[in-house]
Order: sequence, then C-alpha cells, then structure tokens
Amino acid sequence: MSKFLPKSVQKLIEEFAKLPGIGPKSAQRLAIHLLHSPDSRVKDLGEAVSGLKKGILFCEECWNIAEKSPCGICSDPGRNKGIICVVEEILDVVALEKTGEFNGIYHVLHGALSPIDAIGPDDLKLAELFKRIKNRPDVTEIILATNPSLEGEATALYIQKYLQNFSGKMTRIARGLPVGGDLDYADEVTLGRALKGRGEF
Amino acid sequence: MSKFLPKSVQKLIEEFAKLPGIGPKSAQRLAIHLLHSPDSRVKDLGEAVSGLKKGILFCEECWNIAEKSPCGICSDPGRNKGIICVVEEILDVVALEKTGEFNGIYHVLHGALSPIDAIGPDDLKLAELFKRIKNRPDVTEIILATNPSLEGEATALYIQKYLQNFSGKMTRIARGLPVGGDLDYADEVTLGRALKGRGEF
Repeated sequence: MSKFLPKSVQKLIEEFAKLPGIGPKSAQRLAIHLLHSPDSRVKDLGEAVSGLKKGILFCEECWNIAEKSPCGICSDPGRNKGIICVVEEILDVVALEKTGEFNGIYHVLHGALSPIDAIGPDDLKLAELFKRIKNRPDVTEIILATNPSLEGEATALYIQKYLQNFSGKMTRIARGLPVGGDLDYADEVTLGRALKGRGEF
Repeated sequence: MSKFLPKSVQKLIEEFAKLPGIGPKSAQRLAIHLLHSPDSRVKDLGEAVSGLKKGILFCEECWNIAEKSPCGICSDPGRNKGIICVVEEILDVVALEKTGEFNGIYHVLHGALSPIDAIGPDDLKLAELFKRIKNRPDVTEIILATNPSLEGEATALYIQKYLQNFSGKMTRIARGLPVGGDLDYADEVTLGRALKGRGEF
C-alpha cells in the first residue's frame, strides 16, 4: 500500500483499511494521527481492541452479547418476560433500550433472511427463537422489530408463518414517517404505510 | 455512551470515537463489526495498534518517520542530496514518492504556520531546516512543496524570506493543484505535473 512508510505503520494502515467504511486514505490518516498521538492514547486503543472479546459471550436465551448468560436483561426480575421483541442486530437492542419505552425481553437473530447474500434460516438464531417460544407458554406477545427493509420484512413474514399457531399476539413494529421528518420528502412506500397504519387520535 | 453494551465493547467504542472522522455511530458499527470478526483479525488489529510506535523514530535529517536515522531516503546514495523538498506532513512524502518524479531528499515541517491555531515557527521543524541549509553549501535547490492553502503559502513565504540570501534556486511547487486543496489527496499525475512545472520564486 504505502511502501514509503515504516513497516509498523504500513501494517496498521492495512488493518484499518479492512474495517468497513474505512478506505486506504482514511486508514493512512488514522495511522498518522495515532503516530502523532501520545503513547497512552495508542496503548489504550490497542488494549481496547485486544481486550474486546475478553469476557464477552452470547446470552443463551436472547443471543445478545453479554458478560454473563443469561444476560442482564434476561435475568432482570423487573422486566416482563411475557413480551419478546425480535431484532436483527445487537445494536438494535441498544437503540430500543435508549427509547426507554420497552420493558420486555429481546431475541437477537444476528441478521435477516437474504437469498441474494445466501443467508437462510439456518444462519440466523431462528431455531433458537422457535424453541424458546415453544418452551415458554407464558409468552403473550412477540414483537417483530426487524428492519423495514426487504430482508427485514421477509424475515418477519417467515417468523409469522412459522409461528402461525402461536396463541398470543404477534405484532410488527410500526412503519410510518420518522418523527421530525417531512411528509413531502417521504418516499411513496413509507407514506403509503403511514397512511395504512394510521391510528385514532 | 452505550450503557447497554458490555464494558469491553463500550471501551472500544469510546476509543474509536476519539479518532478523527469517526463519530459515535461509526465507532459502534466498527466495534460490533470486530465482535463478529474472527479472533485472529481482532488480534492482528490490536497488535498493529500496540506495535505502531515500536522501532519508529524521526530521521534527524529530514524529520520523516523512519526505522533508522538517517532514514532510507536520506542515506540512499542514489538520491540527489542537492535538492531538498520541503513538505508539511509525512503523508506528503508518501504522495510525492508515489509520483516517481522526484529524486532529491525531503524536509518534513510537521505542520504549517497558522496564527489562528497558534502554530508559530517554533512549532515546526523550521530551525532544523535553516540549520540544515546553512551546514550544507552543496544544496542547489529548495523546493517549497507546502500545501497550496493559506497556511501552506504563508509557510512557503516565511521560508523564502528567511532564506533570501540562499545562493541556490528556491522554487515553489506549481499551483496546478487546486488552491485550498490538500497535497496528500491529489492524484499522482496532478502532483507529478505540479512538481515538473515548478517555477522560480
């Protein structure tokens, strides 16, 4: 890549450039930035990377990342174990927790169905979800909070079909206009959904 | 930041977010990406960061980063020691070397004069440049290749005034580069042309 730089710098540029959204130029800038940073900053980052997976595991109930299994959310007696919110990714849990609007528990699928990327049901934590629902007759609601994308909708549909004999409620997260958004700038599909999903005042 | 994630993940997100051009959201994405990456990838990146400054020093002639002092360029008998190209940053050397148009040696200032950022002559390797020129009567040309920006022009002007009694040629890299641009982002051809088309002060 940059054969005019010392080996250790080249190496870091190569590693940075492997990260998503970081091109060769940004990788160079980051490496040079670190080179000019105090040793303690570089040490902190190095240790944070190396220590990332230390003590990290997947909760064997909800498949979120955690420091213990079951995780803090699954073992919290204050949370309603009767409502399971199904999401695609770990960061979706973070986003939902930040709203402070949800007091149930989660199930992280680790992806969405996508034939084009060869991601089928076996690549996701779907079997685990179905087993979990089967073993837990106290579950009264399943919220399908996969992304409102082609893959997310397909995944939600798949779960809904598979669990059609589920006795509780099965809901889909509302699709509509983002708060603070502009009706006039919304795409037709979103606007159509917002209209269809309209609720009483 | 994300109090809903394990500590080691939070820590890495914080460290990533300190890097230039990486916001909290990108930092989250990068950390989660690494979490899903093979252990060897994570280990490689961690070691590359931690090992970045190992064996790295500044060449005490040109102030470029190197594994030894004098650096590979300064100690290369095949290079013309009579031409010194003055640049702002380490990456500018990389960019110029890539053009293959320059066979002299460099002097890295590590910045440019910028009163607004309180960067004065003492913050740059200017005294080192002047001393170097004084001790080396064999220098026949000084190419001022600072950025074609306000700060870069000011720095070039400062050097030109300081060295007005210099007996050799003093040239400025041609402003074939867009004014206000950044030397290290220019493509090789433009940069090569700019180097070839340099004119007398």
